[in-house]
Amino acid sequence: MLNINGIAASAGVAIAPVFKLEHPDYTVKRREIEDPAAENARLDEALSKSQQELEAIKARTHQELGEKKAEIFESHLLILNDPELLTPVRDKINTEKVSAEFALNETAQQFISMFENMKSDYLKERAADMRDVTKRVLTHLLGLNYVNPAEISEEVIVVAEDLTPSDTAQLNRKYVKGFTTNIGGRTSHSAIMARSLEIPAVVGTKDVLSQVNNGDLLIVDGLDGTVIVNPSPEVVEQYTAKRDQHLQQIEEWKKLREVPTVSRDGVHVELAANIGTPNDVAGVLENGGEGVGLYRTEFLYMGRTELPSEEVQFNAYKTVLEKMEGKPVVVRTLDIGGDKELPYLDLPKEMNPFLGFRAVRLCLERTDIFRTQLRALLRASIYGNLRIMFPMIATLDEFRQAKALLMEEKDKLAAEGVTVSEDIQIGIMVEIPATAVLADQFAKEVDFFSIGTNDLIQYTMAADRMNERVSYLYQPYNPAILRLVKMVIDAAHKEGRWAGMCGEMAGDSTAIPLLLGLGLDEFSMSATSILPARSQIAKLSKAEMQELAAKALQLSTAEEVVELVRGIQQ
Amino acid sequence: MLNINGIAASAGVAIAPVFKLEHPDYTVKRREIEDPAAENARLDEALSKSQQELEAIKARTHQELGEKKAEIFESHLLILNDPELLTPVRDKINTEKVSAEFALNETAQQFISMFENMKSDYLKERAADMRDVTKRVLTHLLGLNYVNPAEISEEVIVVAEDLTPSDTAQLNRKYVKGFTTNIGGRTSHSAIMARSLEIPAVVGTKDVLSQVNNGDLLIVDGLDGTVIVNPSPEVVEQYTAKRDQHLQQIEEWKKLREVPTVSRDGVHVELAANIGTPNDVAGVLENGGEGVGLYRTEFLYMGRTELPSEEVQFNAYKTVLEKMEGKPVVVRTLDIGGDKELPYLDLPKEMNPFLGFRAVRLCLERTDIFRTQLRALLRASIYGNLRIMFPMIATLDEFRQAKALLMEEKDKLAAEGVTVSEDIQIGIMVEIPATAVLADQFAKEVDFFSIGTNDLIQYTMAADRMNERVSYLYQPYNPAILRLVKMVIDAAHKEGRWAGMCGEMAGDSTAIPLLLGLGLDEFSMSATSILPARSQIAKLSKAEMQELAAKALQLSTAEEVVELVRGIQQ
Repeated sequence: MLNINGIAASAGVAIAPVFKLEHPDYTVKRREIEDPAAENARLDEALSKSQQELEAIKARTHQELGEKKAEIFESHLLILNDPELLTPVRDKINTEKVSAEFALNETAQQFISMFENMKSDYLKERAADMRDVTKRVLTHLLGLNYVNPAEISEEVIVVAEDLTPSDTAQLNRKYVKGFTTNIGGRTSHSAIMARSLEIPAVVGTKDVLSQVNNGDLLIVDGLDGTVIVNPSPEVVEQYTAKRDQHLQQIEEWKKLREVPTVSRDGVHVELAANIGTPNDVAGVLENGGEGVGLYRTEFLYMGRTELPSEEVQFNAYKTVLEKMEGKPVVVRTLDIGGDKELPYLDLPKEMNPFLGFRAVRLCLERTDIFRTQLRALLRASIYGNLRIMFPMIATLDEFRQAKALLMEEKDKLAAEGVTVSEDIQIGIMVEIPATAVLADQFAKEVDFFSIGTNDLIQYTMAADRMNERVSYLYQPYNPAILRLVKMVIDAAHKEGRWAGMCGEMAGDSTAIPLLLGLGLDEFSMSATSILPARSQIAKLSKAEMQELAAKALQLSTAEEVVELVRGIQQ
Repeated sequence: MLNINGIAASAGVAIAPVFKLEHPDYTVKRREIEDPAAENARLDEALSKSQQELEAIKARTHQELGEKKAEIFESHLLILNDPELLTPVRDKINTEKVSAEFALNETAQQFISMFENMKSDYLKERAADMRDVTKRVLTHLLGLNYVNPAEISEEVIVVAEDLTPSDTAQLNRKYVKGFTTNIGGRTSHSAIMARSLEIPAVVGTKDVLSQVNNGDLLIVDGLDGTVIVNPSPEVVEQYTAKRDQHLQQIEEWKKLREVPTVSRDGVHVELAANIGTPNDVAGVLENGGEGVGLYRTEFLYMGRTELPSEEVQFNAYKTVLEKMEGKPVVVRTLDIGGDKELPYLDLPKEMNPFLGFRAVRLCLERTDIFRTQLRALLRASIYGNLRIMFPMIATLDEFRQAKALLMEEKDKLAAEGVTVSEDIQIGIMVEIPATAVLADQFAKEVDFFSIGTNDLIQYTMAADRMNERVSYLYQPYNPAILRLVKMVIDAAHKEGRWAGMCGEMAGDSTAIPLLLGLGLDEFSMSATSILPARSQIAKLSKAEMQELAAKALQLSTAEEVVELVRGIQQ
């Protein structure tokens, strides 16, 4: 039995065998061979194994997810048997006397780069398919050990160095009971995804991957951030109880679903959810969200080969607005760049992407992209309670420019006879220190603020939140952060506006007492955090929290603030 | 005649023929040849041309700079004739039938990587020499056109895409009358270097390089940011007059050398200089500096293959303190990382180096490096008026840790019987928004603040100051920046401390009225800006500037602030 500590990234307890998810090294070096016939036989064997695998996956996908989803594996099978690919591979083996893996890899890479340079989207997708098939065959030729996470079909806990967004997207909740990774923090993509999938997770363990073997029994405690390898039966029993207690707690919270969020002394605040796609709305309603505080529209632009059309966007926005049935929906306009790339925009590499050409900076230059989104939003506005929010606003000029473009598109639509809501609030994310410091000037022109703490903290502390070496500086409770939050809230209230928060901090149980005390009007968080937050706020007095916050603002370190808050929680 | 607009980076006017400094593309592709004998003859010719060049440079360097500086070219000549290099090159040409450039490049690269992987510093330096020699021979073999900037021996204006620090270091002030580049801004390395060398420069012209030919007559107006290609005789006359007027103005300023800096209404402020090496002190005194406001010690660590010893550092610090004869010298401890790398520290690549593991963050982990510097500083403290400043402080914890290490080393020295000054002020750079916002808490523990605006602006605006695409957000006059500056100054004064500024902004004629009004005590700038600043401050009333600053703090954009300041300057 071995205990490993990490960062609690998603609440809950999971107990299941280990599944190690490792991306093998597909590097192929030129290797000369003696016997081309033997090499062709090796190739045949690898092709045949790949064929069997693909047919099995295709059948299972067809059965579980339907014909449509299984089509991709049909394309893979076609590539696997395509003479246009295989003939040059065999020629290469025979004439150049090189290994099957080298011949396959060289030939496939040529096709892939050819396809990638084509204008046609269809051919570009073929490049991705060919890459997948090549990896599959290489896995056999190189004797590698790799199972695609989508192919997991038993209850497991996934253990990995890190999980990419595409890995996480492929995880099947039915079988993946939890996960744990070597790297990552509470705000890494995989952690956020885990919370939204409600899969218990512990990240940032440093070396869990090297400490476990496939099949080891594992406990992942996403409440405390502990991972236990090969626990004794007593420990399994203890954690089974803990898991059940947590599940019971969740049932308790569910009773708060239809209840408004009110502090002990009767002050109402709004608890909203952050979403990425229209599919997430179900979870918001299920968890009693009073609105959508942040709809991240960039997912509409990702995993594609070209920009989404106005129609595609309109439908997505309309769906969310309709499903939310008149509850407020804050849509953030495109926030791309930084750590989120769109290959088809072909943006230049930057030395410091977090301090670079992203979000509204890009939209104000690429007004073609921006106007399409604004039109889609305006057209959808009549289907619900739409609020439009611009990200990464650093100066009033930028806000004025963005708003002017919105007004231009609104006028154009009116001229075209399209009906647009007259009650759209227009606000900004406050995630850049300059904007927080100048919030009183912004408040004269915007309808609302939403504080984006993930970025605000990293800029205010000058510490990349993805960089492990400076992660000690990612301090939500630093008094400097609290002071900036206060500036924003006070500025909003002075002008009769509202102030929300849509960073991770809004759903954090240590931050909530302080934020309530500072006067935050709207807390937007992962849907799954809403009910626990509602339960917590019901126990807090806003008047007392105001005193608490006033004290916190005069402290000098984050540790002192945490200590202060802990004091009231005991 | 053609006018090109850019950014005025270094004051003055230069008129001279164009010298295009372009780094050619040394990429060599494998090329098979028919006739090895002819190829060997091509190699011989290139070697012989290179030999003639090197002998000429060596002779000139010996004559102008002495025997020591000429030694490097002796090493280059030895490499050029080394059979260990040339025999395998000729073998390759003869047996593999490849071009001379391919054979040379392949062979040399093998030696270079071999040398680079050696522990010995001597051999590592050989790698750099071999790289230089290989480039020289390749220049001939590939028919490229490249002259090393160190070899310029006529009066010219250098025109380049950009100038690297090493390019700039090689420029000979005697011949290089000015320069202009496609990229860069007022705070880019080349611009800062141009000001310190007092060479007129215009940067950020976007495409000057493609618009000029070698030998074209060029005017570089570093006062207005204009470049004129092939000016008419009338224009040459006009700019000659402008140049002379500027030189005369400089003579006027020189009269202020021994005069204290006093505003029109009799308030004294301190004008200090930023320096990089002990050699810069002469310029500080020549320009009437009242102290050194920023001694950037990282130059001691750069251009070396290992850390500088305590003794090397002690001598540098002692020299600066002695030369400044009791005037205050603020030494900033090591600020490495970000855009400043030290190859021998072998730091991991970061996604956002400006938000990464740099400066005091690194020093608090690599306490071995930090303690050596602190000891050297403490030992030197008795030779003048030393002030120690920690860079990139984001939290009070970091300051406390850094100060504790300093105190430990002080106690150790005392125990060893070494005398250390008892009057060393200990302060911090304020260049992180969190630190400015929490300045009142810091002021209780530090002896002084020095505001580092270059970084403070980039973090506060969340815009990489090196990134052209977001350079519009590098706004020193943004009211948010002015408010942070005010917080720092007010916090310092409340606790009886002083507040200085050592970013580019401190020497900027638009910022100076505002900074005087905000109550800044010390302005540290390029030595060459001191006399113009002293002349400007003598004409300003501090009381009036206080009113001006109060108005600026209530404006909403940088443009409004600039307009306000222009109003008083007319």
